Amino acid sequence: MTDYRRLRVALLGAGAVGSQVASLLLKHGDELADRAGAALELAGIAVRDVDAPREVDLPRELYTTDAESLITGADIVIELMGGIEPARSHILLALGSGADVVTANKALLATHGPEVFESADRVGASVYYEAAAAGAIPIIRPLRDSLAGDRVVRIMGIVNGTTNYILDRMDSEGADFADVLADAQRLGYAEADPTADVEGYDAAQKAAILASLAFHTAVPLEAVHREGITTITAAMIEEARDAGFVIKLLAVCERLIDDAAESISVRVYPALVPRSHPLASVHGANNAVFVEAEAAGSLMFYGAGAGGVQTASAVLGDVVSAARRHIAGGVGQGESTRANLPIVPIGHVTTRYQITLEVDDEPGVLAAIAGILSEGGVSVATVVQTVDPDQEGTARLMIGTHTATDSALSDTVARLDASDVVEKVVSVLRVEGE
Amino acid sequence: MTDYRRLRVALLGAGAVGSQVASLLLKHGDELADRAGAALELAGIAVRDVDAPREVDLPRELYTTDAESLITGADIVIELMGGIEPARSHILLALGSGADVVTANKALLATHGPEVFESADRVGASVYYEAAAAGAIPIIRPLRDSLAGDRVVRIMGIVNGTTNYILDRMDSEGADFADVLADAQRLGYAEADPTADVEGYDAAQKAAILASLAFHTAVPLEAVHREGITTITAAMIEEARDAGFVIKLLAVCERLIDDAAESISVRVYPALVPRSHPLASVHGANNAVFVEAEAAGSLMFYGAGAGGVQTASAVLGDVVSAARRHIAGGVGQGESTRANLPIVPIGHVTTRYQITLEVDDEPGVLAAIAGILSEGGVSVATVVQTVDPDQEGTARLMIGTHTATDSALSDTVARLDASDVVEKVVSVLRVEGE
Repeated sequence: MTDYRRLRVALLGAGAVGSQVASLLLKHGDELADRAGAALELAGIAVRDVDAPREVDLPRELYTTDAESLITGADIVIELMGGIEPARSHILLALGSGADVVTANKALLATHGPEVFESADRVGASVYYEAAAAGAIPIIRPLRDSLAGDRVVRIMGIVNGTTNYILDRMDSEGADFADVLADAQRLGYAEADPTADVEGYDAAQKAAILASLAFHTAVPLEAVHREGITTITAAMIEEARDAGFVIKLLAVCERLIDDAAESISVRVYPALVPRSHPLASVHGANNAVFVEAEAAGSLMFYGAGAGGVQTASAVLGDVVSAARRHIAGGVGQGESTRANLPIVPIGHVTTRYQITLEVDDEPGVLAAIAGILSEGGVSVATVVQTVDPDQEGTARLMIGTHTATDSALSDTVARLDASDVVEKVVSVLRVEGE
Repeated sequence: MTDYRRLRVALLGAGAVGSQVASLLLKHGDELADRAGAALELAGIAVRDVDAPREVDLPRELYTTDAESLITGADIVIELMGGIEPARSHILLALGSGADVVTANKALLATHGPEVFESADRVGASVYYEAAAAGAIPIIRPLRDSLAGDRVVRIMGIVNGTTNYILDRMDSEGADFADVLADAQRLGYAEADPTADVEGYDAAQKAAILASLAFHTAVPLEAVHREGITTITAAMIEEARDAGFVIKLLAVCERLIDDAAESISVRVYPALVPRSHPLASVHGANNAVFVEAEAAGSLMFYGAGAGGVQTASAVLGDVVSAARRHIAGGVGQGESTRANLPIVPIGHVTTRYQITLEVDDEPGVLAAIAGILSEGGVSVATVVQTVDPDQEGTARLMIGTHTATDSALSDTVARLDASDVVEKVVSVLRVEGE
């Protein structure tokens, strides 16, 4: 074997991803050394409890509770603890002591990204985070490097596997949200507390990371509009199917061009996607990121969005990159956020709505509703009226609007809701990907 | 505007891609500077004839016929001339004078890759070539970096837009190869001399590049088994559809694991792909690369495979990467070819065949054919026999084999062809992606 320079690798965390990373590092050490041009020595694994039971069997002497000593002696620090603290302090300590950092911590990057990247810049180190968005799918390097000479216009991403699994099963089985969620929890596709997934918090963190890269602009998590999927019913999904759509939880990152002034919008919500769109055929817990760029046109990246060993693949790719940089010398790349585009609130975004109403089934009602829409500046593209024989006196109206600003659309829905002729606003969904 | 260090960029070639690269460099110069951390000054464009008419209007003073002077004064050289010479000499000159090189030249990399990469290694420069495979689709960085910590098992790529366009139209219209080719030439999807595309030479070059990266092994072009699509008929496509397949020209790069010894196979041929496979829904002139890795699982990368402006996106991404490296310092990354796996000939590869025969429609024929297959060590998975009322005395047999080595399968087909009971071997296709 070639006599490589040795690099000390510190691993923080031994959960589902961390244990796989350690296991693969030990198993494929020689092969990784050949690729990196450096021997990657796993110096230790920082954990809270050395004696805790673990799924993957690793040499016991690797475990330590002394994260600080491990970090300060390392060339590369892999942070897989998750959460903000102590992950943030550990990463800053690592960068401060000259190590490159590999992390999958989307929560930290979405909230403290600028602090982390500035700290890396000061010492000329690099932070790698391919695993922080869309699991094993290589999306960070394509956005950061491959598309660095292009202008991204729009990203539409299915970036949360749990919600895609739930919505896909609701779509294929006609099942209700609560039933599928319970089953997903039983099967391990959803957490006991599913809030982070089903309310879109996880997707919003990833959206912030992707938008920051795509638009060379620091996007704080608070600037991401977020809605979850808990209000989606089996009936809504069936209605969507009848109209040629599937409901997907999308992370949408968009460049808005108004005269010469550019701004961006970053938002997460369940949306109607045409069944013919490539994103419509992303099934199960898979992820996919659809990117539209001015020169490159439409691109799509597809694969597993989560899973211990899948995410470990992305982490180890970053470890090899970090090792190559260590060997090559030079300073780290730093983040490109100089475009610094303004981020507009959801109200300024232009989309179109599909609105389903229950209305009184009597003459003049359609005219009254058309009047409310028109007053709100919302023009109607399609209207489908159906009558449910079980609900005498009530008709169902499905209205597809033309594009308008989200504030005009939501104000109009509020006025419809308050109107005497509307019994109930059944559902309101935005349409994306047309 | 920030006062950036200036980097001199030399462009060699002003064809469909080159002119778009120059145009975008001039148009988005400030934006690219912000991303690269360096001002990218287009120092000149080397062409054969300064006065030739060109589609894109660029400042006339940029053109020069003195490529050597332009190259030796440059920090980054973009080679978009294509072909082997003078592209090879120009790239070696550029590396020798300390410039980083960006190229889309798949023919050169597939034949002289090792020479180019060794030359770059000697001086610590880098060669970037995202545009050399699958046009605008970011596939080089994912293989080179994102998956560097994983083990790629198989790549199946639709990497030639012209042949996918032809096969897709044959599939959707039931048209014949010659007719669609003629129309594709008229529409600009195929060259006047279509040999490089339809005979699989272009796909073979890309396969060599992808396999080299995926398996960390220098793959010479001669080691790539290559078959084109000129023998594919409308009848074969219809028969494939009836059996649940679509015919695609695939570049297959595969890791073969036999006991502990590993080897690789790299091959290009038209294959039957199940209609449910993600590659089956890649339409028109689009490209897609399906990657299976041990840890990451299945990934797919999809987008435009060619086109001047699309390819320019990939080239400019590389220019930004090269500029960042220049600013960061350190030596270039170099290629990872240390695995140096043996490349097996096509005969050693294991696949399964779909064989269509015209045979005498009389008792004992099926037994005779089953005997030939069995003697050849090929076991039969499915047989479908049909009789064409217009061809009395003749039956059509569609035989799906179980997997066997390609040499066993092709020897058996040869014996079938020589047999008295077989009137004609109508078609033989391999099946991939099951």
